[in-house]
Amino acid sequence: MSDSATPSNKAWSGRFNEPVSELVKRYTASVFFDNRMAEVDIQGSLAHAGMLNQVGVLSDEDLRAIQGGMADILDDIRAGRFEWSLDLEDVHMNIERRLTDKIGDAGKRLHTGRSRNDQVATDIRLYLRGAIDVLLGLVRDLQHSLVDLAEKNASTVMPGFTHLQVAQPVTFGHHMLAYVEMLGRDAERLADTRKRVNRMPLGSAALAGTTFPIDRTITAKLLGFEAICENSLDAVSDRDFAIEFTAAGSLIMTHLSRLSEELILWMSPRYGFIDIADRFCTGSSIMPQKKNPDVPELVRGKTGRVNGHLVALLTLMKGQPLAYNKDNQEDKEGLFDTVDTLTDTLRIYADMMRGITVKPEAMERAAKQGFATATDLADYLVKRGLPFRDAHEAVALAVRYAESKKKDLADLTLVELKSFSSLIEDDVQSVLTLQGSLDARNHIGGTAPFQVLVQVAKWRERIGG
Amino acid sequence: MSDSATPSNKAWSGRFNEPVSELVKRYTASVFFDNRMAEVDIQGSLAHAGMLNQVGVLSDEDLRAIQGGMADILDDIRAGRFEWSLDLEDVHMNIERRLTDKIGDAGKRLHTGRSRNDQVATDIRLYLRGAIDVLLGLVRDLQHSLVDLAEKNASTVMPGFTHLQVAQPVTFGHHMLAYVEMLGRDAERLADTRKRVNRMPLGSAALAGTTFPIDRTITAKLLGFEAICENSLDAVSDRDFAIEFTAAGSLIMTHLSRLSEELILWMSPRYGFIDIADRFCTGSSIMPQKKNPDVPELVRGKTGRVNGHLVALLTLMKGQPLAYNKDNQEDKEGLFDTVDTLTDTLRIYADMMRGITVKPEAMERAAKQGFATATDLADYLVKRGLPFRDAHEAVALAVRYAESKKKDLADLTLVELKSFSSLIEDDVQSVLTLQGSLDARNHIGGTAPFQVLVQVAKWRERIGG
Amino acid sequence: MSDSATPSNKAWSGRFNEPVSELVKRYTASVFFDNRMAEVDIQGSLAHAGMLNQVGVLSDEDLRAIQGGMADILDDIRAGRFEWSLDLEDVHMNIERRLTDKIGDAGKRLHTGRSRNDQVATDIRLYLRGAIDVLLGLVRDLQHSLVDLAEKNASTVMPGFTHLQVAQPVTFGHHMLAYVEMLGRDAERLADTRKRVNRMPLGSAALAGTTFPIDRTITAKLLGFEAICENSLDAVSDRDFAIEFTAAGSLIMTHLSRLSEELILWMSPRYGFIDIADRFCTGSSIMPQKKNPDVPELVRGKTGRVNGHLVALLTLMKGQPLAYNKDNQEDKEGLFDTVDTLTDTLRIYADMMRGITVKPEAMERAAKQGFATATDLADYLVKRGLPFRDAHEAVALAVRYAESKKKDLADLTLVELKSFSSLIEDDVQSVLTLQGSLDARNHIGGTAPFQVLVQVAKWRERIGG
Amino acid sequence: MSDSATPSNKAWSGRFNEPVSELVKRYTASVFFDNRMAEVDIQGSLAHAGMLNQVGVLSDEDLRAIQGGMADILDDIRAGRFEWSLDLEDVHMNIERRLTDKIGDAGKRLHTGRSRNDQVATDIRLYLRGAIDVLLGLVRDLQHSLVDLAEKNASTVMPGFTHLQVAQPVTFGHHMLAYVEMLGRDAERLADTRKRVNRMPLGSAALAGTTFPIDRTITAKLLGFEAICENSLDAVSDRDFAIEFTAAGSLIMTHLSRLSEELILWMSPRYGFIDIADRFCTGSSIMPQKKNPDVPELVRGKTGRVNGHLVALLTLMKGQPLAYNKDNQEDKEGLFDTVDTLTDTLRIYADMMRGITVKPEAMERAAKQGFATATDLADYLVKRGLPFRDAHEAVALAVRYAESKKKDLADLTLVELKSFSSLIEDDVQSVLTLQGSLDARNHIGGTAPFQVLVQVAKWRERIGG
Repeated sequence: MSDSATPSNKAWSGRFNEPVSELVKRYTASVFFDNRMAEVDIQGSLAHAGMLNQVGVLSDEDLRAIQGGMADILDDIRAGRFEWSLDLEDVHMNIERRLTDKIGDAGKRLHTGRSRNDQVATDIRLYLRGAIDVLLGLVRDLQHSLVDLAEKNASTVMPGFTHLQVAQPVTFGHHMLAYVEMLGRDAERLADTRKRVNRMPLGSAALAGTTFPIDRTITAKLLGFEAICENSLDAVSDRDFAIEFTAAGSLIMTHLSRLSEELILWMSPRYGFIDIADRFCTGSSIMPQKKNPDVPELVRGKTGRVNGHLVALLTLMKGQPLAYNKDNQEDKEGLFDTVDTLTDTLRIYADMMRGITVKPEAMERAAKQGFATATDLADYLVKRGLPFRDAHEAVALAVRYAESKKKDLADLTLVELKSFSSLIEDDVQSVLTLQGSLDARNHIGGTAPFQVLVQVAKWRERIGG
Repeated sequence: MSDSATPSNKAWSGRFNEPVSELVKRYTASVFFDNRMAEVDIQGSLAHAGMLNQVGVLSDEDLRAIQGGMADILDDIRAGRFEWSLDLEDVHMNIERRLTDKIGDAGKRLHTGRSRNDQVATDIRLYLRGAIDVLLGLVRDLQHSLVDLAEKNASTVMPGFTHLQVAQPVTFGHHMLAYVEMLGRDAERLADTRKRVNRMPLGSAALAGTTFPIDRTITAKLLGFEAICENSLDAVSDRDFAIEFTAAGSLIMTHLSRLSEELILWMSPRYGFIDIADRFCTGSSIMPQKKNPDVPELVRGKTGRVNGHLVALLTLMKGQPLAYNKDNQEDKEGLFDTVDTLTDTLRIYADMMRGITVKPEAMERAAKQGFATATDLADYLVKRGLPFRDAHEAVALAVRYAESKKKDLADLTLVELKSFSSLIEDDVQSVLTLQGSLDARNHIGGTAPFQVLVQVAKWRERIGG
Repeated sequence: MSDSATPSNKAWSGRFNEPVSELVKRYTASVFFDNRMAEVDIQGSLAHAGMLNQVGVLSDEDLRAIQGGMADILDDIRAGRFEWSLDLEDVHMNIERRLTDKIGDAGKRLHTGRSRNDQVATDIRLYLRGAIDVLLGLVRDLQHSLVDLAEKNASTVMPGFTHLQVAQPVTFGHHMLAYVEMLGRDAERLADTRKRVNRMPLGSAALAGTTFPIDRTITAKLLGFEAICENSLDAVSDRDFAIEFTAAGSLIMTHLSRLSEELILWMSPRYGFIDIADRFCTGSSIMPQKKNPDVPELVRGKTGRVNGHLVALLTLMKGQPLAYNKDNQEDKEGLFDTVDTLTDTLRIYADMMRGITVKPEAMERAAKQGFATATDLADYLVKRGLPFRDAHEAVALAVRYAESKKKDLADLTLVELKSFSSLIEDDVQSVLTLQGSLDARNHIGGTAPFQVLVQVAKWRERIGG
Repeated sequence: MSDSATPSNKAWSGRFNEPVSELVKRYTASVFFDNRMAEVDIQGSLAHAGMLNQVGVLSDEDLRAIQGGMADILDDIRAGRFEWSLDLEDVHMNIERRLTDKIGDAGKRLHTGRSRNDQVATDIRLYLRGAIDVLLGLVRDLQHSLVDLAEKNASTVMPGFTHLQVAQPVTFGHHMLAYVEMLGRDAERLADTRKRVNRMPLGSAALAGTTFPIDRTITAKLLGFEAICENSLDAVSDRDFAIEFTAAGSLIMTHLSRLSEELILWMSPRYGFIDIADRFCTGSSIMPQKKNPDVPELVRGKTGRVNGHLVALLTLMKGQPLAYNKDNQEDKEGLFDTVDTLTDTLRIYADMMRGITVKPEAMERAAKQGFATATDLADYLVKRGLPFRDAHEAVALAVRYAESKKKDLADLTLVELKSFSSLIEDDVQSVLTLQGSLDARNHIGGTAPFQVLVQVAKWRERIGG
């Protein structure tokens, strides 16, 4: 990987007095993790060759030979027949060498006007562009499963928490839609990142461009790039796109870690709000009764993994002089693992959310404990003319009183309630019910069941389906 | 900050049996760092009051009282007369309490249909939106100073490095433009982030919306938000925008750390490529001869600072259940310090780059050492029909020979050169000169002086001026 | 800070053509955060002067003048009368300049054989050594409050969780002691770090030592250092100790974030295991009923802060060439903030844990839900000869049956139980009680009340009191 | 891994209604990365079985069967014949199942009084203890190669840099010894960490201990643990040791990243201070002349990798409630990769340093440029009675004058020198030479060749050889 090539390969050993040591070969080789880029590498090479031919640098015959050879190699790779060689360091040299073995001099002409520096930078971008497209689909699929849950539970009341204390009643549908919003921003970020990924470094050669009369617009069109990297020094050393992608990935995992925390909490017997299907859970080697929510726990844990890759990439680039340095080879494993972690996690999450059993009674029971409608009572007083700060204080005293009596606000008599404010009259009961509280929050973004359904419709429109 | 309020304040102590301890008060207070949001807090309150008035919840009289009181408070703050009180915890309570002291009940009505949760989320976004606009201007200003340098040095030859080894000749202008590209992406990212910052949480109240008939579109218009956060639970707990901004900031610092590394290197006597104006350097307390490039060193070091804030914010949000938790108060100091670090660094950098003295002779001398035109010789052979891999090997042997003779390639005689390939003829000398090498890379993104000027023009068009 | 000194100060401006710009002055100055090292800076200077005098480089008269001047300065600093000047950049130059203003030439002789590089490295170590000693005391104090809780609750049964599912009964005392163990390791790490902090760089001068006949053993003894840094290049640039300390700090915060998570959970109404004293909680600006566990939430959030400082410091040092570079000035703010965060957090935590109200009934009620004694039943079968894996499976089926009947294992009849294994007899009931389960785990580290008291005694022995 | 076990395995599926999905199986399995713990897992099981036998829980016959079965399994693993099954999730279940297949009921009795929670915690510690011992040897070996270089170059003069500006002359040997010091602290940290790694969780069972009459002192002795984890809840969830180890690893990589930065710099043609043997370098796919210092570049880049793992582990543990949660499974890959990275890097580094060619002429030439002896001149003046601050200023003016004349200080005439201070006399020339400057810094930690040899001797004593 990179413009570095181990001199043990006869082809460029001319300058060296001794071969690279075996330990070094293993330490610096990347073929066993970068071979996932084999297909895009071939795609890039074919576009490069096509362009060289169009500008007159490569003969028609050579081009046909290259195309034929690459087709064979691609077949071998897809069939699992291609043998990757550590001696040839990376995916690029492995494929080029095989090509030359197959077709001779035409193969040796492929690298004209190109360096591994721009080749690898192009390959990673092609690979990542594809990965982003897959991830965008998976994010959308998870949104679908959450929107479905939200629709089914548009009126399911549960306690809304702040500080893990009961705050106000919300619907479970509203709660699910909060995560749909987060994933919506995640998709936006992936799409924004994709714009910057989808720019072509090819043609920058080692660092300064090439003396061959290349036409980069041709290659860009063949490869579907929407723009060309316009400074060769920058193009071969830029890894912004990998960092930006990983940062977007950290946010995706952060969102899922939050939902996981809630699923784990809700499935603990103290809450009992939901159940997760057995196929996402495991038992214990020692405790026969256990059913553990392993998947959300593992997702929560894997957040660290992606955060770690982000730190690794930022550390990697810190203080690197231009242009390409071998340090950059370290960009790949973290990036690939981020892609894999996101892909697996999103896929499993969408499936798991479809296997959630909601327990409305437990949620409602919990919503009734903790004075969830105290704010409604304060609002009631405000509507009768009390300034908000005074209403807040009156209700605080009522709550303290009710707590000492081990009652909920709704259980206080009108006489008791009136002792905290003479403004309270017998219409107060409706504001102290969970349903009344929910229905009253009927504006954009509010938790009223009607608003939840409005949002469900909006999201279906947005994500299709 | 947040929906938490210390009960030591009479106004909402009704529920509590004992006041908050002094140590806790200091531990949980934010007023000494969040008071930088005072102006946007007032701006938000005025818009909220205006909306309440329009929908009929607040009387004209109360609105006028609030507007008058806030105008006085704003004057006090701008004049440095406002005394911030730790007892009142945060910027929001400090201002609201002062308002009530000034105008009585109208002040107590301001918080109707609002919670500190949505208030603080709105304030941070207003603050950050303003900060991003300043930063975008500063990025552009730094780009200007780099483009100016690039134009002046469109033809100044220097050694292009990969692996800090001499690779091929490039121009200093081309090198400067690499950083203009990076900053261009940074500006794109800031602009993309701004879209997600500029959405309004106000109206989400504590977590579920409010029972008052608010109209969020009015407030959004008054505050210049381009969209409304459409889920109240998400709106009060979302800190994505802060993380995304800090990630973008980490990349800006990473780019400047790279340029700093190069400035430090170039100013070391072994390189001597540039000099930095005295006003950006310092001496030594013990070594009388020292002139140290403190500013780039400090910039390089401050990269860690912003990376650290990014990690802090990601850690903060990991596994937080919905909705608001006090953990979130920790979002501010890191965010503010990131804004300050970026602002100061970009400002000083633009100025410093204007004070760079370029030393073309030292650069050219260095470009002549290290066989910078070896690739040109290989390309020459390819153009005469040799496959690239064979050409590469022939030149590698020539380099090894020249090295043993302590000569550069350009110093070898035609006879010597021909011993490595009979294809070499006397027109070879032109491709072995630095100027020939530069001029030959004349395509989009290449280092040829003509291309550098094309890019300079493109950037001037893009960034204005 | 560092060997860099702004040339705007007449004393070393000889080499420079223009003064440092105001912006640069602010950007590079450290006096407003490093003045907390004033006392140790004076301590270090006095020891240095004392040593210079002993080896004959400084006259008795000069020494006395320096001692007198420094005593005055120390008085001024302690009384808050000392005015720190930005122009003089850092704490070191501020003090030295004041000294020279007071006592003339003797003050100018103080810096003989010393550089700011070794001076600042010495000061940070003296400062940090003191901070560690304070932190060790605070860790111990928190351990005391946890041990007290453990003793009082040596027999208080609660559900032990794994995966937040009920696993087996444990005692609350045992649970508290888990954190005492963690803090015990934290104290060990701080003590190990202290060994490496307590080594003296002074005498390394700028980077290479000095030409004066210094005797570093004298200074080391005067300052209480247990060893001397034996390589001057390393000594002025080493910041390992700060990184190691911050890593230890991250673990302390991680432990407290875990306890905080549990306190928040236990205080939520679904659990209701504990209550936190009002003085550590706050209310809500909008919801009158709220009592929020702000302190543990903030502690959990501040974990990110210290993790961030750790990343910042590691990033800072990455790839720095020897010896001192200005980057290192960035070590201080993160380090100081880590010290402050740890100090405040540990102090408040010890106090808060003393204000915890334990609710044994709620804990016991919860322990009875979730088949906490299923393992005991399996163990019972093993003791009657069934291989463990078979016993595990038999009990799993019994649990599934009980769950379908909405009963606990202890509620099944003997007949029902026997249907899962004929080995079950009527002595089984004792192993299915919470008390029986607890008492049976009576070995080192087990949760039996007796073992908890053994551990309480061990810890009292270890931490005194 | 952990107390979770997929119910698809007949043995504990009793409680579950559906098998784990294939995707979940892959997502939660660890066998393909945790099988490196196979040998320590067997070692742990044998000790556990031995203890069970000693306390009367396991018959002699069963023990012998287990020992025999495990011996066969170990043979299979070492011979690469053991087939790891994804269905059996992890290394522990794979081995236990194979054992039961081989020996029947005795195998099912092995897990008596043990859980995977304490089993896996024990295995990681055994594994890491072994890894630390290997690393300690590798650190020492690298120290050896640096000490050898230092001895050979005890008098080789080079410019000492601060801020990458020439500061004062140092010897190359002194410079090498700075890294020996850093590695010395690294070894101390590893040894300190080892103490905390080498404590035994086994016997904690799932989280609360076990009802079997186990004797943990027996197992600890059999496994060579120096202490026993004394709280079962802590024991199964503690991952401090992994974090502490990774933090120590980050510092090792940070040190090597610093040395790498210098090697890269020194090998660049502008410096030319050293050459790295060809076997640690690679060429370029496009530029025939290139010889790139790939190994140090890759080491510098890999610093990010280990820092990233540290962040991942800290993030993982943040806010985890007691006791074991599945999140913890994520501890292994990062830890293993840290061990591998450190092992490979240290091994290759020791070898590479033995292949360094030092170029003393280039170093000396560089030392003469940049007024390296200016401090010596100031010290000279101080010794003649001038206060240091005045001497510093006089020399600063002399440097400025010399610079304008394009001369070094040593090239100024006595008359010229005297114009800056009348105290200068003709004995000044000796202090202005590189050799004089070196020799004068002859105290503990100073750069004088004599001191370098003293340190070489000290280190040989310390590290043996």
